[in-house]
Amino acid sequence: MKSEIIAVGSEMLTPHRQDTNSLYLTQKLNEIGVTVAFKTIVGDRRKDLVNVIRTALGRVDILLLMGGLGPTEDDLTREAVAEALSLTLRRDATQVAALHARAATWRISMPQNNLKQADVLEGATLLPNSNGSAPGQWLDTIFSGYRKLIALLPGPPHECKPLFDTECLPRLREAAPPRAIATRTLKAAMLPESQADKLLAPIYTTYADVETTILAHTGDIQLTLLCAKPTLEAAQQRVDELAGRMEEALEDWLYSSQGDTLEQIVLYYLGLRQATLAVAESCTGGLIAQRITSVPGSSRSFLGGAVVYSDPLKSAFAGVPEDLIAQHGAVSAEVAKALANGIRLRTGATIGLGVTGVAGPTGATESKPVGLVYIAVSEAQKTDCLDRTFRGDRDRIREYAAQQALDLVRRRLM
Amino acid sequence: MKSEIIAVGSEMLTPHRQDTNSLYLTQKLNEIGVTVAFKTIVGDRRKDLVNVIRTALGRVDILLLMGGLGPTEDDLTREAVAEALSLTLRRDATQVAALHARAATWRISMPQNNLKQADVLEGATLLPNSNGSAPGQWLDTIFSGYRKLIALLPGPPHECKPLFDTECLPRLREAAPPRAIATRTLKAAMLPESQADKLLAPIYTTYADVETTILAHTGDIQLTLLCAKPTLEAAQQRVDELAGRMEEALEDWLYSSQGDTLEQIVLYYLGLRQATLAVAESCTGGLIAQRITSVPGSSRSFLGGAVVYSDPLKSAFAGVPEDLIAQHGAVSAEVAKALANGIRLRTGATIGLGVTGVAGPTGATESKPVGLVYIAVSEAQKTDCLDRTFRGDRDRIREYAAQQALDLVRRRLM
Repeated sequence: MKSEIIAVGSEMLTPHRQDTNSLYLTQKLNEIGVTVAFKTIVGDRRKDLVNVIRTALGRVDILLLMGGLGPTEDDLTREAVAEALSLTLRRDATQVAALHARAATWRISMPQNNLKQADVLEGATLLPNSNGSAPGQWLDTIFSGYRKLIALLPGPPHECKPLFDTECLPRLREAAPPRAIATRTLKAAMLPESQADKLLAPIYTTYADVETTILAHTGDIQLTLLCAKPTLEAAQQRVDELAGRMEEALEDWLYSSQGDTLEQIVLYYLGLRQATLAVAESCTGGLIAQRITSVPGSSRSFLGGAVVYSDPLKSAFAGVPEDLIAQHGAVSAEVAKALANGIRLRTGATIGLGVTGVAGPTGATESKPVGLVYIAVSEAQKTDCLDRTFRGDRDRIREYAAQQALDLVRRRLM
Repeated sequence: MKSEIIAVGSEMLTPHRQDTNSLYLTQKLNEIGVTVAFKTIVGDRRKDLVNVIRTALGRVDILLLMGGLGPTEDDLTREAVAEALSLTLRRDATQVAALHARAATWRISMPQNNLKQADVLEGATLLPNSNGSAPGQWLDTIFSGYRKLIALLPGPPHECKPLFDTECLPRLREAAPPRAIATRTLKAAMLPESQADKLLAPIYTTYADVETTILAHTGDIQLTLLCAKPTLEAAQQRVDELAGRMEEALEDWLYSSQGDTLEQIVLYYLGLRQATLAVAESCTGGLIAQRITSVPGSSRSFLGGAVVYSDPLKSAFAGVPEDLIAQHGAVSAEVAKALANGIRLRTGATIGLGVTGVAGPTGATESKPVGLVYIAVSEAQKTDCLDRTFRGDRDRIREYAAQQALDLVRRRLM
């Protein structure tokens, strides 16, 4: 079954705010085998709302409307659905009493306008909202000869999500043809998207029954596999089979078969080896440490490190000799190695990581362009260094450098 | 004039990815007086795409389509616009040559399919894309007797945004009725949203001709003022007048009247005072350093610092006496002050910042709950420390702590 998610609210047509509920709803819908074919964002104009609802009725089976159920004049979702489907609205006496009771509890006076929230669409079921005053509504109706399921949900995430889970999902699960869904998420680091597609397309295109999504983001590739079958065993088998073939093709680009983040994997391997890590970051300025420490429990394997933005700090915190910097420049393989070595020795970590580069937009020289980054990993026996030239703006270069650095540590640990 | 932004791509109908370009485009459109009436997200199915384009043609003057211009079979925006408007596509010889040249430069072989990117809609102008292989297209046409302006833009943000700015904005500005728009963005730190609204609503509600938007995000409040008038002077005067009254009400919560980030402001004040900053971060794990170093040129005032995640590193990098930690615990005012002092002395910075706390979900004790954070600022003459207990998950607590720490430095510098 195909669905459309409609977010109602003029604030979501400004540069400042975005619908995020729909991501949550999409995940829940996919899990019961319902796809999201369209998402629409519309403001608080009745004419526009009616237009959007009529369009959706013409192209999907399930409409989820979020927002516009409050008490103000701008809240027009009920009225627009009534107009689009030529239904009447009736004021529900129980609901009116509940609104009065709620106002009394909160010791607030209730403007007459609030009673709008007690208006119920002809044939609709009210969906209790335990986190707000506007109840949701559920309508199972026929439009142009086709069955349509329509849910009116409140907009605030803490009202919308639980109400959807408790009231809509069971109803949708009953209506949707029984399907068992299996999913897997594979992740790979520093593999260019075009190369990933070249490697993987010949494989996944032969699995027409598994939906494969490839997402690429500054050195990170996420592959999501989804398969729906009459039984979970059948679905799982297809997903696992395809995942297995993709894992083989991805070789050591692959860092997780279960959707973990790269920093989680690095911490996992550190834990396995009972090793500890410390970092000395110049151009990434704390980004690597920040990613690692975002993982709960990271303190077991991550000691910390230094943000050695100025040259004197490279010497003070990581023991990089001043004349090494003078001779080779702060952005050099020699300094990256000295940073990795130095931070390891200073902290007593098993592994030291050193990063230095030109994040831009200034600071480039003829031989050292914006985007040039040196990354070194040091252990007692061995120090490796690689250099890369990343493209993009300052943020992108820093993100690429952090991703490459974490991947280098992962490869060392593997 | 009314516009609709259409994001094309099945990945944006998954739980994993969201259109973000539209926020940027909306801001630029609003600045030239064009409103966004609808946003639509549609997958890579030709039938759905044609449906969406036809719907949009029926309800807005300006259609901005993003995505689906690449070389793969899934890239169908050109074909769908052609079908919706009954236009032909012709293969552009110059563009074909450019694609071959591009492939040669990158030393990659070019599959035949890539040539799709040279297909041009009848009557359309090609828009050069300096950041990718797929050019944009601009179509100024008549549909059902009405003028329609249609832009086909590449999906990746680093291609979409500059192409929109250089190629579409000037064309749209010419087409839109002249309106003068003045805007201002005020920013305040660590002021609760409810308190901000209580302070400001009595003021901004008396300026019905200025649109005021309040956005709150982990200790950061952004107020956007927008006014449209026949002349820029008139618009600017109203915005400045309201901004002045709001600035007064916000007192020293206000940190910028021009939309700067808090880290930019801290760096600005450091520069004014010719002062330098170094940080010793425990629970924020590099987040503060990362925010500061995200600003180009930050190396002039920011020396760097230490991520002192383990206790021995608190001693090694910031000279915190071991017995101080043993006596008061790593999460204490004493240790925060010692971190701030120590990192200042070790680095020779004018100002030292020290942060220690319980980010959770583990690590809490009876007297030190999750969310408790100590933040200290040290100068030669004076060391201050404050404690806060932030609510939320690990990410939120870390973000609040970083924001509070930067705000404390700002207040010290003011």
